[in-house]
Amino acid sequence: MEVYLDNSATTRCLDAVADIVGKTMREDFGNPSSRHLKGVQAERYLKEARGEIAKTLKVKEKEIYFTSGGTEADNWALIGAAFANRRAGNHLITTQIEHPAVLQAFAYLEEQGFRVSYLPVDDCGRISLKELEQELTPETILVSVMYVNNEVGTREPVEEAARIIKTYNPQILFHVDAVQAYGKYHIYPQKAGIDLLAVSGHKIHGPKGIGFLYVVEKAKIKPLILGGGQQGGMRSGTDNVPGAAGLAVAAKEAYRGLDTKREILYGLKERFIEGVRALPDVRIQGQAKFTKEAPREECGAPHIVSVSFLGVRSEVLLHALEERGIYVSSGSACSSNKKQAVSPVLAHMGLPKECLESTLRFSFSTFTTAKEIDYCLEQLESLLPVLRKYQRHSSNRGRKI
Amino acid sequence: MEVYLDNSATTRCLDAVADIVGKTMREDFGNPSSRHLKGVQAERYLKEARGEIAKTLKVKEKEIYFTSGGTEADNWALIGAAFANRRAGNHLITTQIEHPAVLQAFAYLEEQGFRVSYLPVDDCGRISLKELEQELTPETILVSVMYVNNEVGTREPVEEAARIIKTYNPQILFHVDAVQAYGKYHIYPQKAGIDLLAVSGHKIHGPKGIGFLYVVEKAKIKPLILGGGQQGGMRSGTDNVPGAAGLAVAAKEAYRGLDTKREILYGLKERFIEGVRALPDVRIQGQAKFTKEAPREECGAPHIVSVSFLGVRSEVLLHALEERGIYVSSGSACSSNKKQAVSPVLAHMGLPKECLESTLRFSFSTFTTAKEIDYCLEQLESLLPVLRKYQRHSSNRGRKI
Repeated sequence: MEVYLDNSATTRCLDAVADIVGKTMREDFGNPSSRHLKGVQAERYLKEARGEIAKTLKVKEKEIYFTSGGTEADNWALIGAAFANRRAGNHLITTQIEHPAVLQAFAYLEEQGFRVSYLPVDDCGRISLKELEQELTPETILVSVMYVNNEVGTREPVEEAARIIKTYNPQILFHVDAVQAYGKYHIYPQKAGIDLLAVSGHKIHGPKGIGFLYVVEKAKIKPLILGGGQQGGMRSGTDNVPGAAGLAVAAKEAYRGLDTKREILYGLKERFIEGVRALPDVRIQGQAKFTKEAPREECGAPHIVSVSFLGVRSEVLLHALEERGIYVSSGSACSSNKKQAVSPVLAHMGLPKECLESTLRFSFSTFTTAKEIDYCLEQLESLLPVLRKYQRHSSNRGRKI
Repeated sequence: MEVYLDNSATTRCLDAVADIVGKTMREDFGNPSSRHLKGVQAERYLKEARGEIAKTLKVKEKEIYFTSGGTEADNWALIGAAFANRRAGNHLITTQIEHPAVLQAFAYLEEQGFRVSYLPVDDCGRISLKELEQELTPETILVSVMYVNNEVGTREPVEEAARIIKTYNPQILFHVDAVQAYGKYHIYPQKAGIDLLAVSGHKIHGPKGIGFLYVVEKAKIKPLILGGGQQGGMRSGTDNVPGAAGLAVAAKEAYRGLDTKREILYGLKERFIEGVRALPDVRIQGQAKFTKEAPREECGAPHIVSVSFLGVRSEVLLHALEERGIYVSSGSACSSNKKQAVSPVLAHMGLPKECLESTLRFSFSTFTTAKEIDYCLEQLESLLPVLRKYQRHSSNRGRKI
């Protein structure tokens, strides 16, 4: 049995997505910048894609800009906004537990002379709105808070954060990394006061190599990729028509019956958590640690569960599960190839060392079934005692040397 | 009959390319950064793709970095190299007729305080090596010369330029925009002294939204897209596995029997030029203006012909041809959506006004047939007298008002 529970790393493409990508590669392959019929056809795909995506957010078509993915969208939003608004101030705010695409952009901006405040999080991975409010200064020009944390699934209070920021100064731009949230929640940037919103295609069963940045019409941001002036000069480079068309199909499908789909995901998540809680020496991390009686929206995103299995190294368990056909992740996939000892996200949440080294992320999708969850739980139940025994032995042997 | 002669704008994907893109979207969809089997499979595609591409250039696998396309590759090469080597000097050299992805990057670098020299070109669009030599200073850190001009097909003397640059100072980085040349010529950067080389997938029957930058191992360049540290920290963002795999298939195919393919393209080009020359009041632009007796390598790239049809506005002829099913381009597609009156490339070549307004680009591919060329020539022959008559009438009417 093959059970893919790493959907926060990437997802399988929908067949309808692959179909339209194939069609626009083989048949309607024109360059939207060409003035002839083939170009016009291609431009139509692009326009329709933009329209479909804009609908899901209730924003204007022209506020959607395609990028090569979530990372470029985040980079562009932050670097583009900071430099375009530098005259208004020099201070930026974000959180300690953002995705590296955000954190590395801020590190770059610090090198460029900006001052950045990093909001801490509680043991659930949630920022404090009070601390956000205290950090705002007349010099603040940009705030960035992720919608859902990619490692533990915690949902940040972005709507409330927007209200606080806009009340303090409506000129401050508010960016939201929605890579793990888009397609899981109804997000209405206009209404919420979100000026910039980054989304990735391959996290919602769309293509890799495509994403988008929502930029509210009135926001001033500089382009990151320069050239032929495509997308109104905001993002140059031949438009990725297959990517955009595929992303739009995935977005439309994600929002078709979203509430039902989310309830199904929550059902799977609760089934998994219940099973995991029955195992000895486990700790659920992030908002999912809340009780079953807590409202679902307080229990984090519907598709991510982070679990520490005390006494078992995450790498060891990951590969043991892999041998049984179950694919999960230690930390996030986004930087997991690097031999990073511990996850900075988990460390910022204040997890004890034994948890830091033994945490796995299980992430679901609408393809995930209850049967798969049960299979995974069975394997955990049979593997854990063996691995723990082995690990104790090897630790003891280690001491003797 | 549908005749697509806009292959310098974009090309139709090969079926084999679309097939592997489909397979990696539907089945082998893992994230190469994931540590489990699905990730390892995906990583294998990426490694193989890098290997196939490296082979075509006779460079090391690790010197190939995937980007979202030619524009990002050019931007990254120039901005990344300039900032990484700023301590060594402040002077950059390029040509007046580069693609906007290069020119706009240099404009940005000028804003950032770098000094940029723009080499002029002759009436064929060719730079002078002597002028290049004269522009080199102890402050020069980077030179960028395109391999083939995208609008007129002129081939720049990049190998000779490299020798001059490296003789002057081997530390100067030499970047080549090879978007219109890769897959048409054998290019060996290591041997030629090219340090950075930008390529786009969709110009060689590969996917849109993917390209690569060759970066010689010893070159210091800063990353442009920051985040999870993929591709050795040089280009973050989830690896576009389908794009990379598709690009590799296209690259391999482009270099399979390249010399034969190029001869076929040259044959089509000569057939077309011969036919066009038989029409009254036409001017062939760029190196293609050379006689049939000149060595082919002096007649520009095998797939691009730029022709001025005196007395007919390019827009008018473009749409008249479109009605007959023939798709061509006025200027380049890269910025042709913008209502730019004249092509800066043609203007820098010193074309008279009447040529500037009446030039079309015809670009071929290995899918192009002699029958299509003949059909295009027939349509030109029948359309031109009518359009010229009409244009004279409307000009006369214009004068009366």
